[in-house]
Amino acid sequence: MALLNYDYIDFIIHNEYQADLLKGRFGLEKENVRVDREGNLALTAHPKAFGNKWENPYITTDFSESQVELITPVFNTVEEAYSFLEALQDIVVQELVEHEEYLWTSSNPPALPRDEDIPIAKLNDSFEDGYRLKLAHKYGRIKQLLSGIHYNFSFDEGFLKKLYAASNNGREYKDFKDSLYLKVARNTLKYRWLLIYLTGASPVFGTTYMEPCVALSRHLDHESRFFPNMNSLRNSSCGYRNEKSLYVSFDTTEEYVHDLKHLVDTGELIHTKEYYSPVRIKSAGGGDPLKNLLDNGIDYLELRMFDLNPLYRNGISLQTLKFIHLFLVYMLLIEDEPFGEMEHQQAVQDVDALMNEGIQAKWGATGAGVTMKETAVEIISSMAEMIKLLQPDHQSLLDVLEVPRSVILNADLSTASIVKAQINESSYIQYHLEKAKQVAKQSIETGYSFTGFEDMELSTQLLLKAAVKRGIRYEILDRGENFIALGKGQQTEYIKQATKTSMDSYSTVLVMENKVVTKEVLSKQGIRVPKGIAYTDIQEALLDYKHYENNRIVIKPKSTNFGVGITIFINPFNVMEFKKALQMAFELDTTVLIEEFVTGKEYRFLVMGDEVVGILHRVPANIVGDGVHSIEQLIHNKNQDPLRGKGYKTPLERIQLGEAETMFLKNQSLSPSDIPLEDQIIYLRENSNISTGGDSIDCTDEVDASYKQIAVQAAKAVGATFCGVDMMIEDIYEEASDYNYCIIELNFNPAIHIHCYPYQGKNRKANEKILDLLFRS
Amino acid sequence: MALLNYDYIDFIIHNEYQADLLKGRFGLEKENVRVDREGNLALTAHPKAFGNKWENPYITTDFSESQVELITPVFNTVEEAYSFLEALQDIVVQELVEHEEYLWTSSNPPALPRDEDIPIAKLNDSFEDGYRLKLAHKYGRIKQLLSGIHYNFSFDEGFLKKLYAASNNGREYKDFKDSLYLKVARNTLKYRWLLIYLTGASPVFGTTYMEPCVALSRHLDHESRFFPNMNSLRNSSCGYRNEKSLYVSFDTTEEYVHDLKHLVDTGELIHTKEYYSPVRIKSAGGGDPLKNLLDNGIDYLELRMFDLNPLYRNGISLQTLKFIHLFLVYMLLIEDEPFGEMEHQQAVQDVDALMNEGIQAKWGATGAGVTMKETAVEIISSMAEMIKLLQPDHQSLLDVLEVPRSVILNADLSTASIVKAQINESSYIQYHLEKAKQVAKQSIETGYSFTGFEDMELSTQLLLKAAVKRGIRYEILDRGENFIALGKGQQTEYIKQATKTSMDSYSTVLVMENKVVTKEVLSKQGIRVPKGIAYTDIQEALLDYKHYENNRIVIKPKSTNFGVGITIFINPFNVMEFKKALQMAFELDTTVLIEEFVTGKEYRFLVMGDEVVGILHRVPANIVGDGVHSIEQLIHNKNQDPLRGKGYKTPLERIQLGEAETMFLKNQSLSPSDIPLEDQIIYLRENSNISTGGDSIDCTDEVDASYKQIAVQAAKAVGATFCGVDMMIEDIYEEASDYNYCIIELNFNPAIHIHCYPYQGKNRKANEKILDLLFRS
Repeated sequence: MALLNYDYIDFIIHNEYQADLLKGRFGLEKENVRVDREGNLALTAHPKAFGNKWENPYITTDFSESQVELITPVFNTVEEAYSFLEALQDIVVQELVEHEEYLWTSSNPPALPRDEDIPIAKLNDSFEDGYRLKLAHKYGRIKQLLSGIHYNFSFDEGFLKKLYAASNNGREYKDFKDSLYLKVARNTLKYRWLLIYLTGASPVFGTTYMEPCVALSRHLDHESRFFPNMNSLRNSSCGYRNEKSLYVSFDTTEEYVHDLKHLVDTGELIHTKEYYSPVRIKSAGGGDPLKNLLDNGIDYLELRMFDLNPLYRNGISLQTLKFIHLFLVYMLLIEDEPFGEMEHQQAVQDVDALMNEGIQAKWGATGAGVTMKETAVEIISSMAEMIKLLQPDHQSLLDVLEVPRSVILNADLSTASIVKAQINESSYIQYHLEKAKQVAKQSIETGYSFTGFEDMELSTQLLLKAAVKRGIRYEILDRGENFIALGKGQQTEYIKQATKTSMDSYSTVLVMENKVVTKEVLSKQGIRVPKGIAYTDIQEALLDYKHYENNRIVIKPKSTNFGVGITIFINPFNVMEFKKALQMAFELDTTVLIEEFVTGKEYRFLVMGDEVVGILHRVPANIVGDGVHSIEQLIHNKNQDPLRGKGYKTPLERIQLGEAETMFLKNQSLSPSDIPLEDQIIYLRENSNISTGGDSIDCTDEVDASYKQIAVQAAKAVGATFCGVDMMIEDIYEEASDYNYCIIELNFNPAIHIHCYPYQGKNRKANEKILDLLFRS
Repeated sequence: MALLNYDYIDFIIHNEYQADLLKGRFGLEKENVRVDREGNLALTAHPKAFGNKWENPYITTDFSESQVELITPVFNTVEEAYSFLEALQDIVVQELVEHEEYLWTSSNPPALPRDEDIPIAKLNDSFEDGYRLKLAHKYGRIKQLLSGIHYNFSFDEGFLKKLYAASNNGREYKDFKDSLYLKVARNTLKYRWLLIYLTGASPVFGTTYMEPCVALSRHLDHESRFFPNMNSLRNSSCGYRNEKSLYVSFDTTEEYVHDLKHLVDTGELIHTKEYYSPVRIKSAGGGDPLKNLLDNGIDYLELRMFDLNPLYRNGISLQTLKFIHLFLVYMLLIEDEPFGEMEHQQAVQDVDALMNEGIQAKWGATGAGVTMKETAVEIISSMAEMIKLLQPDHQSLLDVLEVPRSVILNADLSTASIVKAQINESSYIQYHLEKAKQVAKQSIETGYSFTGFEDMELSTQLLLKAAVKRGIRYEILDRGENFIALGKGQQTEYIKQATKTSMDSYSTVLVMENKVVTKEVLSKQGIRVPKGIAYTDIQEALLDYKHYENNRIVIKPKSTNFGVGITIFINPFNVMEFKKALQMAFELDTTVLIEEFVTGKEYRFLVMGDEVVGILHRVPANIVGDGVHSIEQLIHNKNQDPLRGKGYKTPLERIQLGEAETMFLKNQSLSPSDIPLEDQIIYLRENSNISTGGDSIDCTDEVDASYKQIAVQAAKAVGATFCGVDMMIEDIYEEASDYNYCIIELNFNPAIHIHCYPYQGKNRKANEKILDLLFRS
């Protein structure tokens, strides 16, 4: 039995390394096969939207062209890795839905064509393509479709260095580190049956799986097969194993590399990576992995035995990830026991026994007639003791053990049992297809956000999603400031708030920031702006009264806009009124503008490069009557839209029914309980801001082309690549003339999410467009 | 006699056009010949620093290569035009001094070589070069060296349009405007003798002037010649006139153009521009001037009869410019009288009479025996009446008439009399050479500023000066924000605060603005920055105490720098002290940085493009003892440096002796009345800011090249073209290593004036460098 090494624990506690020991670096890899809307393996190509398979570090394919592999970066917490996995899945699912495809939620394959019709991934690399062909030949293509989750783990580098310094036994750091990881690897191999018991989630498979297995299996229904007690097909003898049980030493890195090379040299393996060990030791660098391992030592462990769990959207639960982490820490802190070829074989037999007899099976390694169940209970108790010693006040860590403990005590509570029971009420294909469609629905509903990055601005989340989708590397430079770096090959782009980029020069931004200068530059280019004069002396302005008296004008302080100190004269005014308005404005600024009053509706043109990507018109918060519901009910209903939220984290804000709205209704002689007529529009606000529940209406396709040309011309006039052009237009269907439009402002940091998720209209994919421009080559 | 047209004045007053009438647009042109340090005509080429003569709209040459012509833009006030003229002259004089040349302060030429050795301006244009050769042949080169000031004036366009609308007599606007300007032109021609009397300032000339004139003249001394009563050689018969008195009608624009063309066709003139009228009517557009005049009408009048006045640094007084303006307004408001060929001849004879007899001469036009003096007195009175009618409360306008009135009443007070008297005490050449050197001295002393733009930042003033110097067009877009546009050919550059330009991308600026991101980017490039970690959780930071306990560290809130909340631990510290420092910092920001404490001295590297343009070290306010003066006296003496001022308008600030300084002295057991030993350095401040009297020490040439490479590399890492790199260096003479330097900050808007006018060291001409980079072609 796994016994805690108390000397080791004392040493950790004595040196106050407990917190560091529980730190770590985490990465996840997940495979899912793509299926069509009937649950058949998708025979289509890997979507182009995910870029080049070779270059995309997040989304690629595995053996089959139909097998999507999601790879998270390495994070300091399992939570972050888990969130990112969800985000990656959202990105993929949202793209697949456009092709009526889904991610299959079982580790076992969906309805398959003949083996030879299963498409092998095309990588345009003679070695990789050849290797996959050889695998197909050796194992059949079907088996290669078994999918799962890989868990990559390393201890905190600082912890390892401190531990090395404190133990100081004359070895080199690399050797110290390698022996530590190898101990964890050996123990994990030995006790992996427990992890497999706890995570197994593929007890049922379809009739199109490999013939011998199907033939030996039992019927759940006419299309669903199973073996009694088998909870993970992948980990069973029908699963993803090498042809023979191959022995590779985990005693030293050198022996590991030597044994692996020997297997290749003697023809047992096509390539070292064909060695399907449930635990692999890995080195982080590029190039030849085995050479790296010898030169630089072990950087992390890869655990490869986890099934896709259809009960969780992500294919695995966060609690499971946390348990695995604690389990790995535990593997470090238990006694080190010899683990040679015999122990290796025994560990394989333990897994086979689990598959055949379940947790009640005898645990063969001790030979003492103890069951796996008894052993498992002891391990959980021992882990609890470890946690109490390391972190006396962390109940949350102890909580992680609760589900595993129950599942050990009652096999009916295991994921495999639950999945099998649920499939029994439906059928293998139907059940998983239903799950896959549920996942897709969830992804689409909250699809605007980037899971794990919801604290950032929506525009930045959308840009990051688009980047990850096409395999552009990202780095969060300053989270609070929405400052990121995106990279592809040698190119690195620094981007703040999605549209502040290297493609706009500083002086361009400064021109747009200064309204007076912007107007000057635009009007020199013959673009209509509100005519006006800037005054720094009230006397001077007063002298010009005669010049204005018969016009509609706006008097405003230079530096505040849509704010206080603004007077609008639509009707004729006398010199005293003129003076009063000037005085009010001059109280707020040393420069006051007198501008012509511009009529029409306001439109936001989003210009990117030479193109108008989207045009939006904003409408004040409103509801449309149906002759049945009250205003209050209609607001409630409208607010159900998942695009509406609170606090700028959603594309639209919920409509409030506060003081301002009630007052606005009252002014229309309405109350919240009134029932509007069918199709009657009731406005709840005067202002059209999205932040107070306004609607964004995409009208990109309606606006006459002449205005788009003007918007692009305006952006060019100030040299802008990314530019929000605010234009007043009398009638969007009428061609632009010298009298029917006016540009009132240029914005150097236009929001993009409003064009991606408008209240009405298409997603204009402004995030994709930014990347098209930044990464042109 | 000139009689006010009271109907006209009533009409102006009735329509409330008085203020508009007194508005106008003003431009000045001034010629000076260049001389060497002995007062000989400089035979060198027009300085390269002024760029291409053809393209520089501000600084060019006239007839001779040695004749610099300064041209101001057109301004709304005479004050602005006057200031700009001074600035232009400063720019030219400062450049000439570097070649030991000066601007000759007399309209009459300096010591000349033989006529054929006077260099004609080379313009690389066959027409222009040919024209100058023909002029040299026809008039001799010497006469062409007579220099003066041209005064360009137009009425306010708004005034003219209002006046046109109000008079509405069926004519077209162009015809209305032309007849108005022609009236002013005719009256000015008629009464020009008064302007010449008032502005004449060249009564004496040298022996190398044209032989016949020298022969007829009288001796003041062996090298100075004069004619009695002659106050302006240029306007005399020895001056710059056409060979014959040529008649051109000023009755209509058509007749003017017809007569001029006729003179060219009959060979009287080489070209229309050879017509040396004291008043020209002008059209603003490019292309053929006479065609323009016919097509678009008159845009402004050019008055060409003004002498260089050596009594004023600018060659003319501001009061004179104001007088000329009032005189032109007066010429509009007096009765219109016929001005045919006879009247034209009479006006020439009046000037001749003035030259021969002075102001006592009979005024011939009336034939009634009235003297010019009597007439002049009446004109001044009439002008005063006009002012009182137009602006009853403007004493300052009436004041403008005072000097002219005195000069009319007493010829001894005239500029010409004073100049002649002063030359009498020296000699023609000596006197003007002295004046030229005085002008140069003044220019250099306040040379850092751009006269007329002193309200703008010094860095912007310096950039504007450099632009004007090489003929780059400028425009002030937003004065308060130091936002300008510079243009050359088709290229326009928008620049704010001198170093915010189109050459830096917005994302580059954002990286530099964010200290955490800057450090990350630099350290990835292997550049040394203070090592440190950003914490958002105080608990996390506390856990790292062990990591820091034996190091020198700085704890600071992320967003404030050199401000509150910073703790520096140089000596060992305990966990409680550590916690207290963290708490203080976390009170001010949600992110707190713990950084290594960096030693060494701080240097500012100014990087522009691939080059370190300057390196500065700042030293706290200090004085150096001489064993004689007290600290207080030494401060007073040091503050005499014209580079020191108050309120950021000078390159250095005056040292104060306030509370802080007195306290700082007291801490050193010193008082302001103490007398430091010779060479003893006494510091008055702990901080080294220039704003509190610190010294800036240029050490560009001392710092080891390795640091310069690092500074350039740092700028490149963030993609910056203009970048202030703040570096801590242990020893500037020792090569950079991994341990002896550290970059603490990058600044995206580095000041340039500190590198142009340091307390100690060379002018690094950072302003020129900006232009070199912006206008590369």
